[in-house]
Parts: sequence; structure tokens; C-alpha cells
Amino acid sequence: MSDLSPTLKLAIDLISRPSVTPEDAGCQEVMIQRLEKLGFKVEKMPFGKVKNFYAKRGDSGPNLCFAGHTDVVPTGPESEWKVPPFQPEIIDGMLYGRGAADMKGSLAAMVTAVENFVQAHPNHPGQISFLITSDEEGPFVDGTTRVVDALMERNEKVDWCIVGEPSSTKQLGDIIKNGRRGSFSGDLTVYGKQGHVAYPHLAVNPIHLAAPALAEMANTHWDNGNDFFPPTSFQVSNIQAGTGATNVVPGTLKAQFNFRFSSELDFDALKERVLSILEQHQLEYHIDWTYNGLPFLTKPGELVDAMIKAIETNAGITPELSTSGGTSDGRFIAKMGAQVVELGPINATIHQINECVDANSLEQLSNVYSGILENLFVKTK
Amino acid sequence: MSDLSPTLKLAIDLISRPSVTPEDAGCQEVMIQRLEKLGFKVEKMPFGKVKNFYAKRGDSGPNLCFAGHTDVVPTGPESEWKVPPFQPEIIDGMLYGRGAADMKGSLAAMVTAVENFVQAHPNHPGQISFLITSDEEGPFVDGTTRVVDALMERNEKVDWCIVGEPSSTKQLGDIIKNGRRGSFSGDLTVYGKQGHVAYPHLAVNPIHLAAPALAEMANTHWDNGNDFFPPTSFQVSNIQAGTGATNVVPGTLKAQFNFRFSSELDFDALKERVLSILEQHQLEYHIDWTYNGLPFLTKPGELVDAMIKAIETNAGITPELSTSGGTSDGRFIAKMGAQVVELGPINATIHQINECVDANSLEQLSNVYSGILENLFVKTK
Ligand SMILES: [Zn+2]
Ligand SMILES: [Zn+2]
Repeated sequence: MSDLSPTLKLAIDLISRPSVTPEDAGCQEVMIQRLEKLGFKVEKMPFGKVKNFYAKRGDSGPNLCFAGHTDVVPTGPESEWKVPPFQPEIIDGMLYGRGAADMKGSLAAMVTAVENFVQAHPNHPGQISFLITSDEEGPFVDGTTRVVDALMERNEKVDWCIVGEPSSTKQLGDIIKNGRRGSFSGDLTVYGKQGHVAYPHLAVNPIHLAAPALAEMANTHWDNGNDFFPPTSFQVSNIQAGTGATNVVPGTLKAQFNFRFSSELDFDALKERVLSILEQHQLEYHIDWTYNGLPFLTKPGELVDAMIKAIETNAGITPELSTSGGTSDGRFIAKMGAQVVELGPINATIHQINECVDANSLEQLSNVYSGILENLFVKTK
Repeated sequence: MSDLSPTLKLAIDLISRPSVTPEDAGCQEVMIQRLEKLGFKVEKMPFGKVKNFYAKRGDSGPNLCFAGHTDVVPTGPESEWKVPPFQPEIIDGMLYGRGAADMKGSLAAMVTAVENFVQAHPNHPGQISFLITSDEEGPFVDGTTRVVDALMERNEKVDWCIVGEPSSTKQLGDIIKNGRRGSFSGDLTVYGKQGHVAYPHLAVNPIHLAAPALAEMANTHWDNGNDFFPPTSFQVSNIQAGTGATNVVPGTLKAQFNFRFSSELDFDALKERVLSILEQHQLEYHIDWTYNGLPFLTKPGELVDAMIKAIETNAGITPELSTSGGTSDGRFIAKMGAQVVELGPINATIHQINECVDANSLEQLSNVYSGILENLFVKTK
């Protein structure tokens, strides 16, 4: 292990800790010790079972925050793994283990990047911070969102935020995520009247009532998206009606649907349009809404520029901006008014058996992260 | 019990026997003893667990067959009954017990009607028969259909058949059923491609594909029916898709639908039209078909006329012809080329807790049945 790079060593240490969400399994303590050595002031902010910390170096000037999570998704059947998922190993240049790509490799790269940067610029201008949670893969209730609330309450400011989510697809740095779509779900019940199929005039079939309304929603063009977002998408994820008997007209139908929406639209506007379709089809219905998060968007500017340059220099590639994919903790930090961009390793194997990451790419990622610090704090001065 | 009519006494005896389908619990033996006393030649025709018998009096001339079943549907929670469901009791003129209306009251009325008729006309012309099963409420595999097959194999002929199903709605004899619609079901699977709602371009949502096709089928006018049948009806009885998770686009959708079709259409024609709708919507799908039975129709003629007259004379009401409701064993007997009509007591409480029948109406039903025998065998001669 002696010839491994510092970033790989730290990544292996973190992956060895079985921090299945919402567990942290000591990962944050490892990071905290390294950061305290660099002069960071560390604040532990546990909520419920969730461990979080906020650490900062510097007292004034713009604040660049590294954000991430120490928790990982469950391993699935361990016997299907090439290596035990919490005993990371490098095979043919790939580091295997649960969390290798999502996102303990990024956490390690953030720490070593800051170590290198602080060593080179012990009196750097501005502020560098870390916002780390163990509840990103879980219900994300007691994690980043609560830390952000606490920070906002005391007027803590974050100007730029790099989230370590694995944004790359084929090559480190080929994609950075400068936004994410918003998301909300609806839990729809359509009421009919139960009866026997032989007496259709005495029954009201909620499947027959709902089908054209769902067809219309599935076929609706909600918006065109914009330069940064694909068009808003609607998906019915679940539908159920019927007693199982083939001769009974069911009394109710239940359907769940989900919107992923661009920054062109908001929750209220979409809700209005759903309700108006249901009304047009004269349904008797009830909907429970679950609001998962606003879209966020970081338009090209200081942070994006600094990231593009650092990637070009250290990874030899010009990144593409993207807002595709699921929600991330970026949406919470964006509420602080921060520019938020996600950058991390290749995401091809995340949440899967045999999650892995190119071992060399972690050192490269560390260089990109420190390059961003250089570009924002040193080169522009 | 001494002042009860013979029909009521026999009905009470039959109801006391807990013949939950496919059990017969000795009911057929009771009927057989009474019929043998009248000179019927009785043939027991058990198939599997199901008891059936065919009994006949007379050797030549037109054959009038009384058809029915000794099995009953389960009682449901016995504690909710006014009287224990297999301990029949008359309360306020109503005879309570499982099978009182469907159809042990009819069986008793058939037996006493024939007893009275044979006593008055010991040398009646023609043939009188009984076709009784204990598998009408069950899967109807080893019941009437198999007896009919055996009878047809030996060229046994039935000209007229009275099925004792409870056809009346408000008053004994207000409705007789001179036909039933056909029925078949389809078990549809629509194939899509599972994925994550955040990556809709990588998934194919089978709910979105199926909704417009189901909407179109629900909205299709299949036929106009005819003088005897209401229009063909289509009902989706069950639909299911989704993993339960709100962020997963399911890979398949399953739906079950059922047709009740008039004598204007047949299985093949309807199947063709369903397939053509599915093709139009370019679905990838699979269907398993379950064919439950052809429609049957007995147009006004000798049997219907004899029944109308007997009801007018003995119940003081002119019956309406109807083909509504579910399937019945009539469809099997109709295959023999017989005129088949259903006539029995009021069906308001069948298959329910506290099933009951107007005690006086059973004697009246017996008189109607013997009146039909008179009209067919004696008065027209
Ligand atoms: Zn992650
Ligand atoms: Zn019945």
C-alpha cells in the first residue's frame, strides 16, 4: 500500500468503513482530523441518526464549499461482488468497493486537494469550507437541508459550491452538472363505483375513467425546457385497480406519477395543469402531493469558468454542462444563493454490484479540485 | 312445521343441508327419492367431486327438463346472519337460509310441481326430466356441461328447459330470462422498458403506452345489441404496473378485461377488434384469452308462451323477457338445441348475508311450474 497516492490511500480508508446510509461509520472523523490539522474550524451538526459537519478555513472573502456525503447505498448480495464491498481492492487499475465512485473517492480527492492547496498557499484569500452529511442516499431529511437551514439562520454565506457527485460518464471531467431538475410526485385516487361486470350500468369503472386522463397527461408537452434543461418530463410510476377477480368492476384506481421539471416551470403551475386535465375528464379524484425539490441552475460564471479551466489543465478535456439525472443535495445548497456545480468521477457503476472507479482518476480529480481553488483564489487576484 | 306447505317443507329440508359448492350434502338423494316414487328413472352422473343426476319420466315425445343446482355459495360470517344459514327459519313471512333463493326454493318447487302434475296426469304425454348438479356456483367444469356432453353423445334430446335460477326482481315471475350474454376475458401484458424516472429517454413506460389503447377500448361501441340483448359491454377489471417505488418506470403493465357480448357478435370477431386496437397503438403485448361461454337466446315460441300464460294464471302478472346478468348453466343446455328459459324467485338477496325468499312465493312458483307442464303437455293437445 506504500506506493499508493495519498488520495487513493484516503479513499481506501473511507471505503473500508461500512457506512450504509444513514451510518457514517467513522468516515467524518477521519476527514475532520485531516481538516483540523490544516487549521479548519470544525462544527459537528448531528440531527437524529444523521452525522453532519461543517468545517471552514478563513474568516472573510468568498466562500468555496466542498459538499458531499459519507453514506453509501446497500451492497446487495455480497457474494456477487469481486471483492468484499467494504474491503476495497485495486484490480487492473480499478478501485472496487461500495462508495468508490459515489462518493468516497471524491471526498478523498477534496481533502487531498485542499491539503495541497493550503500547503502551497497557507495564507490564501477567501474561505474554504466542507459540508458533509451521512444522509444523502437516505430520506435526506436530517442531512444537508438541515445544515443549510442552520447556516442560513446565522447568515453564513456560501458563494461557490462543488458537490462531489460522480458527474463524469466516460472520462473524468467530461460532464459537470450545473443544475438539476425539480421533482414532485402525485398520489392519485380516482373514484368509481364497484359492481359486477355483468351489470355495467350499475357500476362506474375508474380504470375507464382514468385511462384517457392518464393518456392525455402522458402525451402532454409540458414545456420546451431551455438552454440548460431538457423538457419537463412526466412519468406514471405505479398504477393499481381491481380486486383480482375478473368479474368485478373495481371501485377505485390508484396511480402515482412523478414530474421532473425544468426551471421554466414551477410546482404550482404544473399542479394547476394536472388538475385542469383531471377536471376536463370529469373525474372524481383525490391527490396527495409530495414535493421533492426545486430545480436549481448555475449559469456559466466564475465557478463554471474556474472548473472548466481546471479540468482542461488537469484532465485534458473540456467538460460539457448538463442538468440531467436525479435530484442531489445541490438543490439545498443552491437555496443559500450559492453557485453550485457537481463534479466527480465516472458514474457508470454507482449503486451497483462491483462499484468501481479508475484508481488514477482520483489523483487527477484531486488535481482538478485544487486547480479550481487556484483559479478562484489565486490566479484571478 | 305441520302447517307448512309441501314445497316449503322440502325447501327447508334442502336448505338444512350445508352444500357449499361443490358439496351436495345429500340434497340430490332427497330429490331422487321423491322422483323415483313418481316413476322417474334416475341416473347418477358424478364427475370428480361433483354430484350430478339426470332423471326422466316418459319414453317419447317432447322432453321438458327442469335444470338446477344443489350447491350454494359460502355463507360469509355466520354471526352476521339473523338465523344460522343452514338452519332455515321463517320470520315475518320470509324464509331465511343460504340457498333459499338460489336455488333450493326452486328445486323444491320443481319437485312438488311435478308431483302435482303427475298425480293429475299419471299418463301425461311427452317426457319430464331433471338435470341437477352440485357445481354451478363453482368452476362449472364437472357439472352441467359434462352431463350435457354425455347426454348429447347418446342423442338424448331436450326440447324445453326451465332453469330454476332466481330470475324475478320485485315480484315472482316479473322477469324470465330467455337468454344470457356470452363472456370471455383477456389477460393483457404490455411490455415497456424499466428505467429511472430521471432518465425517461432510457425507459419505455408501458402505462403511457397502454393508457390510450385502454381508453379507446373503454370508449368503443362494439355493437348495438339487438331486440333481445343489450349492447356488448367491455370492462377492465384489473390493472397493475409499478414496483411501488415512485422513481422507477415499470417494465410491464398487466390488465384483465372482460366482454359480455350479445348474439350479434362472437368471440373471434371481438378478439380481432381488440388486436387491431392494440396494433394501431403499436404496443408490444401478449394476451391470454379465457373463454367463458357463448351467448344463448330463446326467442318467443312454445316454451316462452307456456311460461307467460302459467305466470299470468298463477302469479297474476305478465313477465318481461330479459337477457341481462351473468352467465348460467343455461348456456350449456342450449347447446342441445333446447329452448332454455330461466324462472325462479326474487334474486334481491342471493349470495348475500341473510339470503331469503318470500315463503308463500315458493308454493306459487310450484303452481307456475305445474302450470307450464299443463300448458305444454295437456292444454295444447
Ligand atoms: Zn452520491
Ligand atoms: Zn344459482
